[in-house]
Amino acid sequence: MSATRMRMLSPRNFFSRSDVLLSGGGGARRPGGSQSVGSGGSVGSGVRSLTCPSLSSSPGRALSSLSTTRRGLPKEKMTENGVATRAKVLTIDTMNPTVKKVEYAVRGPIVQRAVELEKELSEGIKKPFAEVIKANIGDAHAMGQQPITFFRQVLALCSYPELLNDSTFPEDAKSRARHILQSCGGNSMGAYSASQGIDSVRQDVARYIERRDGGVSCDPDNIYLTTGASDGIVTMLKLLVCGQGSNRTGVMISIPQYPLYSAALAELGAVQINYYLNEEKCWSLDISELQRALDEARQHCNPRALCIINPGNPTGQVQSRQCIEDVIRFAAKERLFLMADEVYQDNVYADGCQFHSFKKVLFEMGPEYSNTVELASFHSTSKCYMGECGFRGGYMEIINMDNEVKAQLTKLVSVRLCPPVPGQALMDLVVNPPQPGEPSYANFIKERTATLSALAEKAKLTEQVLNTVPGIRCNPVQGAMYSFPSLTIPEKAVREDKGQQPDMFYCMKMLEETGICLVPGSGFGQRDGTYHFSLLTHTPFYPANKVKEFHQKFTKEYS
Amino acid sequence: MSATRMRMLSPRNFFSRSDVLLSGGGGARRPGGSQSVGSGGSVGSGVRSLTCPSLSSSPGRALSSLSTTRRGLPKEKMTENGVATRAKVLTIDTMNPTVKKVEYAVRGPIVQRAVELEKELSEGIKKPFAEVIKANIGDAHAMGQQPITFFRQVLALCSYPELLNDSTFPEDAKSRARHILQSCGGNSMGAYSASQGIDSVRQDVARYIERRDGGVSCDPDNIYLTTGASDGIVTMLKLLVCGQGSNRTGVMISIPQYPLYSAALAELGAVQINYYLNEEKCWSLDISELQRALDEARQHCNPRALCIINPGNPTGQVQSRQCIEDVIRFAAKERLFLMADEVYQDNVYADGCQFHSFKKVLFEMGPEYSNTVELASFHSTSKCYMGECGFRGGYMEIINMDNEVKAQLTKLVSVRLCPPVPGQALMDLVVNPPQPGEPSYANFIKERTATLSALAEKAKLTEQVLNTVPGIRCNPVQGAMYSFPSLTIPEKAVREDKGQQPDMFYCMKMLEETGICLVPGSGFGQRDGTYHFSLLTHTPFYPANKVKEFHQKFTKEYS
Repeated sequence: MSATRMRMLSPRNFFSRSDVLLSGGGGARRPGGSQSVGSGGSVGSGVRSLTCPSLSSSPGRALSSLSTTRRGLPKEKMTENGVATRAKVLTIDTMNPTVKKVEYAVRGPIVQRAVELEKELSEGIKKPFAEVIKANIGDAHAMGQQPITFFRQVLALCSYPELLNDSTFPEDAKSRARHILQSCGGNSMGAYSASQGIDSVRQDVARYIERRDGGVSCDPDNIYLTTGASDGIVTMLKLLVCGQGSNRTGVMISIPQYPLYSAALAELGAVQINYYLNEEKCWSLDISELQRALDEARQHCNPRALCIINPGNPTGQVQSRQCIEDVIRFAAKERLFLMADEVYQDNVYADGCQFHSFKKVLFEMGPEYSNTVELASFHSTSKCYMGECGFRGGYMEIINMDNEVKAQLTKLVSVRLCPPVPGQALMDLVVNPPQPGEPSYANFIKERTATLSALAEKAKLTEQVLNTVPGIRCNPVQGAMYSFPSLTIPEKAVREDKGQQPDMFYCMKMLEETGICLVPGSGFGQRDGTYHFSLLTHTPFYPANKVKEFHQKFTKEYS
Repeated sequence: MSATRMRMLSPRNFFSRSDVLLSGGGGARRPGGSQSVGSGGSVGSGVRSLTCPSLSSSPGRALSSLSTTRRGLPKEKMTENGVATRAKVLTIDTMNPTVKKVEYAVRGPIVQRAVELEKELSEGIKKPFAEVIKANIGDAHAMGQQPITFFRQVLALCSYPELLNDSTFPEDAKSRARHILQSCGGNSMGAYSASQGIDSVRQDVARYIERRDGGVSCDPDNIYLTTGASDGIVTMLKLLVCGQGSNRTGVMISIPQYPLYSAALAELGAVQINYYLNEEKCWSLDISELQRALDEARQHCNPRALCIINPGNPTGQVQSRQCIEDVIRFAAKERLFLMADEVYQDNVYADGCQFHSFKKVLFEMGPEYSNTVELASFHSTSKCYMGECGFRGGYMEIINMDNEVKAQLTKLVSVRLCPPVPGQALMDLVVNPPQPGEPSYANFIKERTATLSALAEKAKLTEQVLNTVPGIRCNPVQGAMYSFPSLTIPEKAVREDKGQQPDMFYCMKMLEETGICLVPGSGFGQRDGTYHFSLLTHTPFYPANKVKEFHQKFTKEYS
């Protein structure tokens, strides 16, 4: 913003403005937005000086007089000079400034380059690799994980109910499909559902949570079905963020984090409060670090929420029950709204590790906590053994939410009408899978076990192979689907980078030379001076060996 | 906000605060948010005085000192008194104030009451009607419209590809399914797609638009697949909104409007600029009214965008080509970003009416306009002959968007990863349906024609029946799926309403007595002193006659 303002006040800029108003450049544009960025920029710069948010937010006379000019000028000029002088309404300098602040590394520049490389390969351009391996995001099916047969049979039956007469479909799949369709308007997945989600699905989710949490009660009325977990997380943050200046809402997130959090907070203009996971202790969470981060943040914002990802993304740790209890106590003491991202709850591999839901621990801590601590927990159809990312299914459970706020939440989600119904149907199957004695049970267990043990094996292998490489140190992958090893990057390479983070430089080079697409640690956040990359452990052509080769070559090259 | 501030500064409030800190009421809460709103409110009021947004946004020392108190107090008190004194973090007074401003009539109180009545009926409670008819929203399948067989066959094939070996499925359905699956990661709808949408689907959309618009070129790179049209509209508004005070972005919307627009603008804190459609001229759009609204708005905000719904929702008009041309000229002259909501483009019934896309008209107006006017147009799988609302499929096409802004748009949509893939698949079928000579062609045409002519017939019938009622005046339903008749409500009834809008009072009464759920005109906006309701013309048990009876009874009762 300050840079914008400097441009804005420079004489050159006012020259460029009148320049634009006379010669424009609009005529150079072709449909399809194919006008060059350069000319867009110069056109934009003319308007920038008059509408940029930094100006608009500056108080007093200067604003009103200038903005009057802004609204007056182009109109008059246009009637004189015709549209050739017409500048764009929406430019990089006149768009929503909070959107500009959004960053999303797992789909950032390195992934865009990976897509280009795939295209070049498909066009027959020679590369030092036969194909691009996208190890940047947990996209299970794209990595060859097979969908659960039962789930897809039911989805087919729900999509085309004529198949209910097809004798080749198992009876339990048909009864699930009937159960879902009966809850749909006009017995069709094409009808809108209730905004909170289909009632019967929310009831099935509640029963699933009660089973998962050893009988702790769950009210279906506290379940909101979502468009993937991301939708639920963003919706909760939307409710929480308010205030201005030193009273602006602050939200605590782990570093390394999943960049959805930083992106959503940037868009909402909330204050991101970083607490660092302890890499030396296998990415565990230290309450003392939470306290440090909170106390510092209280000097300049109003911390109101604490986000936890367990099992961890991208760090793969699984929190101990004790740690979760401590976190809940901390949230209670400090009056923080807890957000528990638990989408990897079935992805726990390491011996001695077990998933504990925040809900269950909260209720085991007794009424002193279970009646008061506000919690939202999130789950999804995208991860675990399902990996059904494309269906965008998910749910959130809210605990101890103020009833008036809950009414506001219900109203807010009604604006997007409803989550995609096929995703809701899939969520229903995840929480209500084949039961012992049902025809599909054996095959369901077989498929689920095969997927989960393949994930466990790959996680272990990744750790083992990477730890044989001098200069790479990898914590045990206790859960989720990623490893986040630390890198030693030679000084020469650190100096080499052209305005890039050293680990971005490293990952870009790896992509160009090996076709492996990793996300640099800088995209998730890391302690200054440390370097990492995030590697999806769940890839078809197991890339750790290639990573090993590359790292050795890279280290030699820059030593 | 000012009301909150008054409470905040009242002595009673500070009393209630210490009151809260001593006795709290937290202990009264049960899990499941079942604590009463009252106690939630009183607890909230204690915190309200210290964290409410109105305070936080007030500048100077008072803020910092008070907010320090706020952050200090509860913590200390708690360690003394334990959690019984813990107030909620998130209350109606400490939540995001822009969310509170959101209203969404088509899912508002009257619809919630309709859901309650359905529940009461199902529990055997006697009512003056056998069932609730939800004529509040265009939910075609819920109203008995049948899905297109071909679409559902392909979706079943994509969901469960083993069916590709099933000889009962037509070959063209199978080839479409293969075409879609080949473009999915791992050939699965369970993989994430590109954030902008599946490439091949965007190419099919572009070819569809070129056919629709008589060969006007369409660049697939300007197509963004969306989660229903709503998602695209909100995303575009997000990009546009910036500035503060008298420089805050203003967006022009038609009155009556579809409440998504007012809801999104409220949430974004943008300025809603109302332009009124001309009811006397069949809800047509007058440029003079656009000019009036714009000129008035320029006194207090920065108008940057003009939203048009054609065919109209809830007013059912179809814009003439001339009118569209005039609107485009107006947008060019006044430098407004055009947003064309064209989700009812196949729903045109009246003789002499025809759908003209803004894109086509823009390009027929020549390079002076087609090279410069910024346009986003929106389509969806939810309306027309498809009515597949639950799949949340849609697309937007952007024209003349600045390249830097476009890069920001692509980044922004990447945060939600991708639109639901089944919805993308469905969108692909809508733009690439069976062709002459393909096995499914005849049946597809038969089903589509049957649906569209049923819609046309119902639209005509609604108009005819309603116009036989003294006190109801209904414009011709030229398109879309709604009529928006004006009501004469007797003075006695106008005085009767208890804080309700008279037409809300009328519609609530109709719901209780007839089971017909309509949305009052006040939910869409209307000229002061006029009353309307929105009636979905597309209902299975044709309700106009019931409406007629009710209106006559109501008028007698209050005359």
